[in-house]
Amino acid sequence: MKVAVKRERDPAELRVAATPDSVRHLADHGLDVVIEAGAGEAAGFTDAAYTASGAEVVTSIDPQTIDLLAHVRPLTAEFIGRLRAGTITIGFGSPTSELAAVAALRDARVTAFAMELVPRISRAQSMDALTSQALVSGYRCALEAAMRLPRFFPLYMTAAGTIPPAKVLVLGAGVAGLQAIATAKRLGARVSAYDVRVASADEVRSMGGTFVDLGLDAIDGAGGYARELAEDRARLQQERLAPCVADADVVITTAAIPGRPAPRLVSADMLRGMRGGSVVVDLAAESGGNVEGSIPGEEVQVAVADGHIVVLGMKDVPSKMPSDASRLLARNISNLVALMTVDGVVVPDFDDEVVRGTCLTHAGTVAHQPTRDVLEGAN
Amino acid sequence: MKVAVKRERDPAELRVAATPDSVRHLADHGLDVVIEAGAGEAAGFTDAAYTASGAEVVTSIDPQTIDLLAHVRPLTAEFIGRLRAGTITIGFGSPTSELAAVAALRDARVTAFAMELVPRISRAQSMDALTSQALVSGYRCALEAAMRLPRFFPLYMTAAGTIPPAKVLVLGAGVAGLQAIATAKRLGARVSAYDVRVASADEVRSMGGTFVDLGLDAIDGAGGYARELAEDRARLQQERLAPCVADADVVITTAAIPGRPAPRLVSADMLRGMRGGSVVVDLAAESGGNVEGSIPGEEVQVAVADGHIVVLGMKDVPSKMPSDASRLLARNISNLVALMTVDGVVVPDFDDEVVRGTCLTHAGTVAHQPTRDVLEGAN
Repeated sequence: MKVAVKRERDPAELRVAATPDSVRHLADHGLDVVIEAGAGEAAGFTDAAYTASGAEVVTSIDPQTIDLLAHVRPLTAEFIGRLRAGTITIGFGSPTSELAAVAALRDARVTAFAMELVPRISRAQSMDALTSQALVSGYRCALEAAMRLPRFFPLYMTAAGTIPPAKVLVLGAGVAGLQAIATAKRLGARVSAYDVRVASADEVRSMGGTFVDLGLDAIDGAGGYARELAEDRARLQQERLAPCVADADVVITTAAIPGRPAPRLVSADMLRGMRGGSVVVDLAAESGGNVEGSIPGEEVQVAVADGHIVVLGMKDVPSKMPSDASRLLARNISNLVALMTVDGVVVPDFDDEVVRGTCLTHAGTVAHQPTRDVLEGAN
Repeated sequence: MKVAVKRERDPAELRVAATPDSVRHLADHGLDVVIEAGAGEAAGFTDAAYTASGAEVVTSIDPQTIDLLAHVRPLTAEFIGRLRAGTITIGFGSPTSELAAVAALRDARVTAFAMELVPRISRAQSMDALTSQALVSGYRCALEAAMRLPRFFPLYMTAAGTIPPAKVLVLGAGVAGLQAIATAKRLGARVSAYDVRVASADEVRSMGGTFVDLGLDAIDGAGGYARELAEDRARLQQERLAPCVADADVVITTAAIPGRPAPRLVSADMLRGMRGGSVVVDLAAESGGNVEGSIPGEEVQVAVADGHIVVLGMKDVPSKMPSDASRLLARNISNLVALMTVDGVVVPDFDDEVVRGTCLTHAGTVAHQPTRDVLEGAN
């Protein structure tokens, strides 16, 4: 069967859905791989390297000749319309925000798998792209903060006096938050963190952070993700977080709720309570923002009593480290393909909860219930 | 006596020669401090904070009314011409590159101390501004490299496979180099380092780096600094470094020779031997560059077999972390002032080797022999 790998068209997307290593993995399962010329260039993988790994490099993919398509960003409705019925696609699908594309996948009778939907169970860990990309994002947030702080992260005891370590506060202790904690800690900062989920306290501590207990009841959502809070509870949370934010040199926010806007954790008032020179990094800027006034891809200065602080809205974060981000994502994808491949043929077994859970559209229907509900409501 | 602190005029200079903390230190020694309004703004120290620490904030300094002037960058000949004879100045003097300013200090009969000249002896460590600022620079170089590498620094063992740690090579293991090693190591990179000085091998190891032995005889200069190499030896060094450079994901060069152009460690050929995506950071770019083709303040792309690498020429590095850089520098300066202060009066004791060694001009003569030699040769 022929697996095709797209060159991403969005200039902000530097990742690629296959690497020479993942091509070999697919070939080991008896699959033929074609990849568009230049697909890996921005991520540091040359056409020559793909050829050497056994892929065929082509100028452009003919959608009528392929059996499976691997991609990073959601496909366009236009491109989907050119696929044959029964083609399998695997990549990010943004199920609830790319409704036109989902409808196109359904109408084209494509069997689409959305990497966002990989169930959070042990057996699917090797395919969990949200986790692998969050690893990149969390690490990156800590670096971005360190670059913008006019101070050191580590403690320095010098002949000219002692420089105390920076105080880093991480809000949201999922995969990205935990990596931000670990990275800030590695750099020598004093790190504390908060999350609404009760399980996160031990995880924060295991990364070397101090868990901030706001004295609120814990809240856990499904699958280890957080869920939305009632309004009064959100307000109380902000009130109790305010002094922690004011005391921090760096605040990194990473709170996300799948399929929902990001929760507002830090208000403009809380920002104004910070010390001049402090840095706020909002990883959730693209999904609405944990921080009031953050703008994706921009650095906003906010006036405070003794100067100003910087609020950085993160955007396209995995593309800032496209090489390793692609390595992990491509392997997530090839692992999912491998799971569905029997004797060189990709045959999704919908009795497998990983396959079933990850499926977005199949045989002319939207398989993912919440997306179907939204789509039908929208029609 | 009246100590004045200048607001730096160069827009690239964000440091300040005194902080509220160092003002208190000077006041404890019976000195009155005046500081120009806004002097600490870019470094995060407000006029209000200086006032609270006991300084008088003035719109501009009247050079005719002050006894001692603390500054960061070398003074201009124009400003020096307005100082009274016998005024003491303390700051960076760039003795061998700011000859017009040195001549002006001499002719104005100013007693000038250049922080570059602080002797490298234990007793003077608390005044050693080259060391304190190199601490900032070395840390910063490692961060700049980590930000530009399309990969992680640390090892990650994930469900989607293992990401090996980045390989960082540091050339020049003085204070800045050792801090670059320590910071890259903290971030989880695999770090190796090279220096011509024999003493550096143990220091590199103490920071967690692997010392690269090129099988060349060791060379040590005066005061723990490196000195220039003969041409054939420099060539041999490049030859033997080439495979180490080719193997590295990141190269950070920090080799400097006081008063001389930076040694050329990495040639264009060596750059072309690197892997695509690799990052080279040249801390010595402003003094001629350790790396062929590096440009201060710019990021140069160099084509290699499988893509391109980035060569970053560093510029004004301590100003990238002006708050902590100023904290250390201001304390270096106030410690030197304190050393020379008796009963509230600054009286340089030229029998003290620290005072004598740091003195650039005094009583109408250039006290620093090498600078005098250059100046007299230039006249």
